[in-house]
Amino acid sequence: MEKTALIMAGGRGERFWPRSRKNLPKQFLSLTDDGKTMIQLTVERILPLVSIENVYIATNRQYAALVKEQLPHLPQSNILCEPVGRNTAPCIALGAAHIAKKHGDALMMVLPSDHLIKYNSMFQSVLKESCKLAEERDSLVTIGITPDYAETGYGYIKFKGDVNIGTAFEVERFVEKPNLELAKEYLASDEYLWNSGMFIWKVSTILDKFKQLLPDTYEGLMDIQAAIDTSAEQEVLERIFPDFPSISIDYGIMEKSENIYTIPGNFGWDDVGSWLAIERIKKSNENGNIITGNVLSISTENCIIEGREKLIATIGLEDLVIVDTDDAILISDKTKTADIKKVLETLRICNRDEYL
Amino acid sequence: MEKTALIMAGGRGERFWPRSRKNLPKQFLSLTDDGKTMIQLTVERILPLVSIENVYIATNRQYAALVKEQLPHLPQSNILCEPVGRNTAPCIALGAAHIAKKHGDALMMVLPSDHLIKYNSMFQSVLKESCKLAEERDSLVTIGITPDYAETGYGYIKFKGDVNIGTAFEVERFVEKPNLELAKEYLASDEYLWNSGMFIWKVSTILDKFKQLLPDTYEGLMDIQAAIDTSAEQEVLERIFPDFPSISIDYGIMEKSENIYTIPGNFGWDDVGSWLAIERIKKSNENGNIITGNVLSISTENCIIEGREKLIATIGLEDLVIVDTDDAILISDKTKTADIKKVLETLRICNRDEYL
Repeated sequence: MEKTALIMAGGRGERFWPRSRKNLPKQFLSLTDDGKTMIQLTVERILPLVSIENVYIATNRQYAALVKEQLPHLPQSNILCEPVGRNTAPCIALGAAHIAKKHGDALMMVLPSDHLIKYNSMFQSVLKESCKLAEERDSLVTIGITPDYAETGYGYIKFKGDVNIGTAFEVERFVEKPNLELAKEYLASDEYLWNSGMFIWKVSTILDKFKQLLPDTYEGLMDIQAAIDTSAEQEVLERIFPDFPSISIDYGIMEKSENIYTIPGNFGWDDVGSWLAIERIKKSNENGNIITGNVLSISTENCIIEGREKLIATIGLEDLVIVDTDDAILISDKTKTADIKKVLETLRICNRDEYL
Repeated sequence: MEKTALIMAGGRGERFWPRSRKNLPKQFLSLTDDGKTMIQLTVERILPLVSIENVYIATNRQYAALVKEQLPHLPQSNILCEPVGRNTAPCIALGAAHIAKKHGDALMMVLPSDHLIKYNSMFQSVLKESCKLAEERDSLVTIGITPDYAETGYGYIKFKGDVNIGTAFEVERFVEKPNLELAKEYLASDEYLWNSGMFIWKVSTILDKFKQLLPDTYEGLMDIQAAIDTSAEQEVLERIFPDFPSISIDYGIMEKSENIYTIPGNFGWDDVGSWLAIERIKKSNENGNIITGNVLSISTENCIIEGREKLIATIGLEDLVIVDTDDAILISDKTKTADIKKVLETLRICNRDEYL
């Protein structure tokens, strides 16, 4: 069966400010040493399985030009612009409608655009297994990540250790972000995986699920689908899509479905959730510093310094994150980078939108 | 007797890098809130005593344009350019030669160009007393500062508490920069003052001292003096001055002289020796931060932040000095700003002269 992919690239992540901006979210940044952006890496790692003509990018209209620039080989019509952000369920529904219209039934991989994966070949083999399962059994397949520590920022997947098909395990239920105590319990048990937000199914399977579980959305979706490639396409999309309920695929579909399998992935997944992730991604020097750009450090240890042309001279610093850009520089304690959102709030309140 | 002043402005202080540069030393920077540069403040505070025509600035040729720009009312011929830096004794000798040639005998105040004084009226009254003593008794007068703490970076003046003329005390001896233990002893006793490097004497008195204690320098100086205002002036200066021994006035004259008096000054003197001095000069906000420029601080305490147009966002910082300029930014622990010299050494070694 033909393989397709829907890459979700509408996010507005603020956690990489000042490099990420309203007009340049994380998925369009290069955070690795190879100079490729997150979305470029996302596409690159599935190309052995999916031809570029079968890759669809769901994003916000304001990012369409960025997608085109960063993925020049992607057909223009594969950029699906959501008129407004409505969480993952409507986004996936829109992708499914386009894929079904163009390909009939097909395998559909749903992937975030702003995560990193270290071992591409292992990732591809997990995708292949997932496709096989989705095709043969009409299953909803989700990729679970074997947890390294008691993370409270992710959802979890509880699976049935005794019900497996090959390397896939049946999902018992999806669990919301836990508190630390619960997260520790999950980690200690051998029954939970992190929910990576990567899904594989047949487009017919997921459309059936929408019809069954979100029938109003499905109905609107059929109107949108009918208008694809007609002169009314834009008008219909803009009329109907904003009325879709803002709902996640986990909550809207997965938690209410049967026949869900998870394949545990152990391929060096990283959601690159904050500047601290850079420590997992890039090599540090002998002083524990991770440095790029024009930087001169004296007695400086365990710092992340992202410089540019301007000389950054540091003396006697420890455990800081320093990120320079053309118009703003961030200097933050490593343990406090979550307060970047306070910086952005303040900028918003003070009408300094040029920095957002 | 006519009053004149020689302001020494040839220093190349590196401790205010990255704001101070090879082409813009500390005396030409504004470090106070009033926007005036150190040398402008130095001239301004003596103008009630000395007319601008009687103010001489000794500096390096490369700074002559800066002096002219910052002191537009100063006669051009009052800028004395040393062909090379040769410490304070030759600098003062050159100034004395010029002043004697133009004014005959006169009172001569020798002042550094890069110190701050808080109570100008008290300072002026000390200068007046110093002039009186220098004129009436042919004394070498030096202004001593009552020490606040056991500073090891200054020279000290030991005075005879029982030999005074008015508020002036006879100097017993000059003491080199002490170690901490000695500095503590000096502070505990009531016999030592800080050596501020400010001197008052008649030009005839100091020229006599040169003749007596540095006769070779004096001889060359007379040739230089004879050539002043002739077509040979520049050639003679450049031929003779570089051969003068590089020697301080303290070592070359003061330590070997009699009839030296010190007047203790308590007028809020500050030599502004490093970025930390900013804490004494500028007001801090409720978090103990001293901030200028485009800065947004979250959970930041006791920091000195000198921003410019570029937004500096700080999160969770404590006790840092942050100084932004067009081409370089310094981020240093407060206790480590002395290592700025290591930064400059490294820049020199790496041939990155554009930052020096």
